[in-house]
Amino acid sequence: MNQLSPIGGQLLITDFLFRARDMFGRKEIIEYTEGVETHRYDYATYADRVIRLAGALVELGVRPGDRVATLAWNHHRHLELYMAIPLAGAVLHTVNLRLEPDEIAYIVDHADDTMIFADASLLPLLDVTRSRRPQMKVVVTDEPEYADAVAGYEQLIAESTLLAEIPPRTENDLAALCYTSGTTGAPKGVGYTHRALYLHTFAACLADGHAISERDRVCHVVPMFHANAWGIPFAALMSGAEQVLPGPHPTPPQIATIVAAESVTYTGMVPTVAVDLLDHAVASGTDFSSLRALVLGGSTPSVRLIADLEDKLGVRVFQGWGMTEISPMATFSRPPAAADDDPALRHDHVRKQGRLLPGLHWKLVDAEGSEVPQDGKSQGEVLMRGPWVATTYYNESHPDKFVDGWLRTGDIGIIDEQGYLEIVDRAKDLIKSGGEWISSVALEQALLQNSAVADAAVIAVKHPRWQERPVAFVVFHQGERLSSQAVLDELAERVPKWWLPEQIVATDVLPRTSVGKVDKKTLRTSASEQADLWDPTNATIAAVPHGGVSS
Amino acid sequence: MNQLSPIGGQLLITDFLFRARDMFGRKEIIEYTEGVETHRYDYATYADRVIRLAGALVELGVRPGDRVATLAWNHHRHLELYMAIPLAGAVLHTVNLRLEPDEIAYIVDHADDTMIFADASLLPLLDVTRSRRPQMKVVVTDEPEYADAVAGYEQLIAESTLLAEIPPRTENDLAALCYTSGTTGAPKGVGYTHRALYLHTFAACLADGHAISERDRVCHVVPMFHANAWGIPFAALMSGAEQVLPGPHPTPPQIATIVAAESVTYTGMVPTVAVDLLDHAVASGTDFSSLRALVLGGSTPSVRLIADLEDKLGVRVFQGWGMTEISPMATFSRPPAAADDDPALRHDHVRKQGRLLPGLHWKLVDAEGSEVPQDGKSQGEVLMRGPWVATTYYNESHPDKFVDGWLRTGDIGIIDEQGYLEIVDRAKDLIKSGGEWISSVALEQALLQNSAVADAAVIAVKHPRWQERPVAFVVFHQGERLSSQAVLDELAERVPKWWLPEQIVATDVLPRTSVGKVDKKTLRTSASEQADLWDPTNATIAAVPHGGVSS
Repeated sequence: MNQLSPIGGQLLITDFLFRARDMFGRKEIIEYTEGVETHRYDYATYADRVIRLAGALVELGVRPGDRVATLAWNHHRHLELYMAIPLAGAVLHTVNLRLEPDEIAYIVDHADDTMIFADASLLPLLDVTRSRRPQMKVVVTDEPEYADAVAGYEQLIAESTLLAEIPPRTENDLAALCYTSGTTGAPKGVGYTHRALYLHTFAACLADGHAISERDRVCHVVPMFHANAWGIPFAALMSGAEQVLPGPHPTPPQIATIVAAESVTYTGMVPTVAVDLLDHAVASGTDFSSLRALVLGGSTPSVRLIADLEDKLGVRVFQGWGMTEISPMATFSRPPAAADDDPALRHDHVRKQGRLLPGLHWKLVDAEGSEVPQDGKSQGEVLMRGPWVATTYYNESHPDKFVDGWLRTGDIGIIDEQGYLEIVDRAKDLIKSGGEWISSVALEQALLQNSAVADAAVIAVKHPRWQERPVAFVVFHQGERLSSQAVLDELAERVPKWWLPEQIVATDVLPRTSVGKVDKKTLRTSASEQADLWDPTNATIAAVPHGGVSS
Repeated sequence: MNQLSPIGGQLLITDFLFRARDMFGRKEIIEYTEGVETHRYDYATYADRVIRLAGALVELGVRPGDRVATLAWNHHRHLELYMAIPLAGAVLHTVNLRLEPDEIAYIVDHADDTMIFADASLLPLLDVTRSRRPQMKVVVTDEPEYADAVAGYEQLIAESTLLAEIPPRTENDLAALCYTSGTTGAPKGVGYTHRALYLHTFAACLADGHAISERDRVCHVVPMFHANAWGIPFAALMSGAEQVLPGPHPTPPQIATIVAAESVTYTGMVPTVAVDLLDHAVASGTDFSSLRALVLGGSTPSVRLIADLEDKLGVRVFQGWGMTEISPMATFSRPPAAADDDPALRHDHVRKQGRLLPGLHWKLVDAEGSEVPQDGKSQGEVLMRGPWVATTYYNESHPDKFVDGWLRTGDIGIIDEQGYLEIVDRAKDLIKSGGEWISSVALEQALLQNSAVADAAVIAVKHPRWQERPVAFVVFHQGERLSSQAVLDELAERVPKWWLPEQIVATDVLPRTSVGKVDKKTLRTSASEQADLWDPTNATIAAVPHGGVSS
């Protein structure tokens, strides 16, 4: 075993590697592929391989500050790269494998990656990149003899001379880099310093945060190619939690199998995955009793999803809210002690995005940038700052996104007097109707309360009189298609009349972005292309009651 | 209410004040005096008073970096000073009220305190100090009209103009200062930066640390005048835990009353207090069911005390190990998940000092400074480094205590392969007998297994042949006095024969230092003064079997 020691004095995420080795050496990392166990080893072995791999990187010419990319699913070698690249003094750049080859080429060029580790199955995504960057070194994670690669992954580890000493870094050096999914404009890079990720890790392990501990067996359903897999791999290393990796494109049945087989205690996922997991688990009767926490993030889950997961699977559900620019976690929706004996009060807190994690600061501002009160009523855009909040994009100035040290999140929220945030909308998804705001998220939540509705998305469409009006796209449960009027009638019981969408569009599935969010850009394009869907000259539309509007 | 906001960007402990105000405004701080409730208010009120008090300090001329002292018991005003002094940009210097007036004068002079907040009952302790430092401002915490004071405490708050802005500080500025109890040589100051205390607070709130959370009601039995009350006041503010202050010199019956009346969930104390609390609680049948954690620290508790607290009171016991130089916490003895269903394994971990808190590093070194393995067998002095470990004393060089960035703790320990530390002795309390070490702590623990023995302390006394030999001081339970031979016979079943003390000295009580540790210096003096107690020319002593010694 390599007895390399941490540097000390600075907040470096690679310290967690040594901690895992020295205190949790026999704890396990388990990998599945297509629902079958394909790898299992302990932290001592993991640490030894990581140190050897870091040595190999240095031998291959990686220098402190270089960007080294990964294009990989959630597997044990990706977890090794999470530590080996920063240990070599370089910057771990996780590339989103759901992007198009052109977008990947743009990102790799912008980051100026000197080297990339890619799964063999994903190499076609790199064709454009490699033609543009012939000098970039490529290592294939899972095929020893790939023609164009500098070496096989296992060969690198086997032939590495031990890292004699850790390349010097400070806590303010970058450890990782991730590009936003770019729903507007070109993708933008967010650099994470060691300090940012270190403090983020502490926050993830707080008793009032995700509370990752030595008792946990975490399953990484959240992709490791995006936003540090919510930072949970670092939290697991620090605390000695065991880690289960579900491999390439895990299906809900595979996730259910893994949770039951490996007694997983903690996992997190986007709501759409949770919907399918719930359906499968209920149908199959999967045992979820080991799971102490299922955390939903990435977009707002419906109240019904939360209740169904808790009632039908018997697991505790929490929400986390964050974004790439916040490393990514900003809040956690742990209900207060007062809700322990009051299920309704508990649900009322879990449906919100949660309390601010210690270490961070926030404020709400109106359209003019003036602060609005945190009174449980006033809405404003959430502005954030703190040690793991970005203050700039990577090699790109973006002054409208960063104001006096604050990040403009683009999310519109309400913060109550106990510090619970409720996101009511994305700033760009608000529907500005007759001088008032209609929340597309609130409308979607209200639509989802209709038992026939499986999924819903609301967008704004331009309107000659009211400026904007809502249009709803609705996916019905199989065999439960309702008329537009029936949907509107039910909806009218729950929202002000002037919020009612101009049109209810039934669709089989909602388009989604590479990270699983509803792709409203595509919906807007689709709406504007379908003349019969939206005709502002149509008299029935202009006649929609608008009594509540103050214009 | 004052809407002053935190600075942001830096790790400042005063951020926790704003967090408590904005998210936990209705949570309570409760104060008892002599077992009776004397004060109760919420965090919103607390924060408002703290901000006013900080304003008053600035008006009184306190400047960034100034040391402002406290000489006070655990009460609500002391808790206000914990935040107000750092918020004013100054350094909170807690003075140990168990010291002699001369020692206090030395410490206040050395720290160059410009101002002191003292309880009226403790003012006589300041006579020497005040005669030497007539320019030092004095505020009495609890008597409005004290003759010599600059103003009454409540008057300061009432008349304060609001702090217009927070005096600027960085995370590397000192927030607090505490002097070691000085069992050897003059007291030495340990300065705590904002960064150190901030990270220490995060560590205290980790799920695998003390796990202080919003669900907690903590009781500060540990004196606030020493080592930041283990940092728990900061942890409570950050997490929104409610705080109960037991007032001046709380007795075990008073502590028991408070725990039951206030549904305290967490408290910590030194083992001697826990012994008396246990006796009282068992005799009185106090309800301790609210208590989720009783943490012992400051010295090593006996295995019997841990078992009795768990079995007779039904509370979970943990150990923390640390020292003034480590802010003070370094470890926490949470048993691993594997011990959940195995009480014996659980106790075997709780009797150890515990796992290193994340953020810190340690190593074991032998007498020559060479590293020894962490294998569960090898002993060495524990060296520490990390963001909340001192690297120097306050305004005083002490090169033998700090080596290459490491703190020499003076504690001899064993670290096992799961990272659990067991302290076997203070370096200076080891008995060097015939070239081998005898652990005074292990001998004390073995003596305490005798059901007639209530307390025990072992010291080394010089010996012409074996260099040093152990002598034991023993306190018997009432009515259970045994002969020396009976004690030795029982002890011989548990320790190697050559460990057996030369003498068993029965005594009514063990002398203790100002922070509750056994005062071995006094015992050594007492031993050397009593010729009949120890006569190295005595033939029976020289004949003590020494078979196990390798000399």
